[in-house]
Amino acid sequence: LDRTWIEKARQRTAQLVMPPRALGRLHDIAEQCCAIQQTLSPSLEHKAVVVMAGDHGIAAEGVSAFPQEVTGAMVRTFLAGGAGINAIARHAGARVQVVDMGMAATLDPQTTPGGDQLKISKIAPGTASFARGPAMARTQAEAAIMAGFAHATDLFDAGVQMLGTGDMGIANTTPSAAIGAVLTGCTVDQMTGRGTGVDDAGLARKIAVITDGIALNRPDPTDGLDVLAKVGGFEIGGIAGLVLAGAYHRRAVVIDGFISTAGALIAHALCPTVADYLFAGHQSEEPGHALMLHHLGLAPLLSLGMRLGEGTGGAMAMTIMEGAVRVFKEVMTFDQAGVTAG
Amino acid sequence: LDRTWIEKARQRTAQLVMPPRALGRLHDIAEQCCAIQQTLSPSLEHKAVVVMAGDHGIAAEGVSAFPQEVTGAMVRTFLAGGAGINAIARHAGARVQVVDMGMAATLDPQTTPGGDQLKISKIAPGTASFARGPAMARTQAEAAIMAGFAHATDLFDAGVQMLGTGDMGIANTTPSAAIGAVLTGCTVDQMTGRGTGVDDAGLARKIAVITDGIALNRPDPTDGLDVLAKVGGFEIGGIAGLVLAGAYHRRAVVIDGFISTAGALIAHALCPTVADYLFAGHQSEEPGHALMLHHLGLAPLLSLGMRLGEGTGGAMAMTIMEGAVRVFKEVMTFDQAGVTAG
Repeated sequence: LDRTWIEKARQRTAQLVMPPRALGRLHDIAEQCCAIQQTLSPSLEHKAVVVMAGDHGIAAEGVSAFPQEVTGAMVRTFLAGGAGINAIARHAGARVQVVDMGMAATLDPQTTPGGDQLKISKIAPGTASFARGPAMARTQAEAAIMAGFAHATDLFDAGVQMLGTGDMGIANTTPSAAIGAVLTGCTVDQMTGRGTGVDDAGLARKIAVITDGIALNRPDPTDGLDVLAKVGGFEIGGIAGLVLAGAYHRRAVVIDGFISTAGALIAHALCPTVADYLFAGHQSEEPGHALMLHHLGLAPLLSLGMRLGEGTGGAMAMTIMEGAVRVFKEVMTFDQAGVTAG
Repeated sequence: LDRTWIEKARQRTAQLVMPPRALGRLHDIAEQCCAIQQTLSPSLEHKAVVVMAGDHGIAAEGVSAFPQEVTGAMVRTFLAGGAGINAIARHAGARVQVVDMGMAATLDPQTTPGGDQLKISKIAPGTASFARGPAMARTQAEAAIMAGFAHATDLFDAGVQMLGTGDMGIANTTPSAAIGAVLTGCTVDQMTGRGTGVDDAGLARKIAVITDGIALNRPDPTDGLDVLAKVGGFEIGGIAGLVLAGAYHRRAVVIDGFISTAGALIAHALCPTVADYLFAGHQSEEPGHALMLHHLGLAPLLSLGMRLGEGTGGAMAMTIMEGAVRVFKEVMTFDQAGVTAG
């Protein structure tokens, strides 16, 4: 990120008709967007959320409160416009695109209602269980990231100025916690929560599965691709690709909660400068999320007790970010308003 | 507030196609709006922010970083659409109305650009200094509250479903801190901050002025009208009237930061049930604000380091609230989506 744009933007902020930096983080957001877009007239008007969907072999270990069939059923709901992410994205003025990165189910974009917003990049119909070996081959991890990168590139080429990341995949808090533990250095206990709502026994099982899976596969924390392959997921790789594309194409990317942030950790392990283009939409209720964000140097914009995923927290935060940019562009200067600075 | 509506609304939330209450406070917001509007199809589409403006005799004691002339100049800026509140309200889809509750300056709605959004309820051209006696007469305090109530009533009658409160008045963190100390029982030291940015000497002077003013005037903490008259301000009384009108007409009111919350404290002292209709837009940087919100039993929706006033934090929070209501109304049920609950 070119810091001279931050400085130029801060000079304009100082002229706005209000006490110095009286709108707090709204100024920081706008200035970061100036630097990302290399302009003093940034725009976040054109927005999209990409929901990456995939299934997980680890679901067979009983780590989720929901059965695997729900992944495909929820993707149908996204395409029908009836899920949480659809309502919030409509409110934020963002389109929703869904990518089958590797669901167990197969949906045909031609025949599924709303299928024009479904993209198929199915690496495989679900990962292998990392309780028995690597979740995927290294070549598959690379393919997942490249697919995410390509989808984001298409959207940016179509004019999208701010991209939200979302996820759907039953059991995907389990690989996300594994990634979080490996890449932040925190313990599996610290990183593991109840996901969609497992009970105490389920949580203990989840922690044991993750601990054993890391011991078995020995992911290399200095190699993001290795971590993704050993204990990750296809949709998490797709999200990592979205994040890398944001930095490559100089566009703001708003990550959502625990799974999206695991994807961002993979991207960050491959290319640490991605953090300059990232905004943390919200603080998830999942306890490891704060530790992940700390590792990335990000502070969440919202903290509303959300834990749904799908991109909902990021999409809601888009409304704040767009407001921040409008303040930067639309508020008069002291001179324009004829007000004497204090 | 009729709790049976909360229960009915919670039953609908439980049917939404997501894990139980996975969107956290968004569900609470929507359910409270159901109870306020007594419907399972609430709407927050029609929004307004009322910025109450007034001046303060206490400004002569050197408690603010800005001169008193700025009050009128900023009101001109609001009417011209060039202030922080204008940009954020436009983003939130809220109209902005300004009320001269008692500025030192006189603006003519007929000749001031944008004057169609200026209402005149000037109680007096600024309060008296509460360092020397009561800020206003008890009859003036009552008139200020009634004027705010009337303006809110007009807006509700015109179809406004959610009202944001805002303030403009150089030195008005000083009466607000005094009100906060009297009505919450916290100390003046705890309640007093730097406002628009006084230095250490200014802060010490402000604390001394408030402490002495309370000792001199002896406001009665069991009598909200007395507190407003002794150490308050005309715009703070106007805000109290807006808050009371929200409860009377069963409409959601989103309060902003320190000054708006002081107004809410006055309203709450007169009628504690107003809290059921209130939403705290954000956590101000002013240190006493959290203590005020705690007294009202409110938790802020945003915490972004904002400290501008004008209604900016409340207006930004309106975007969250409207999103919450859209989730409640637009998300499919498990049955509609054909998804099996976990």
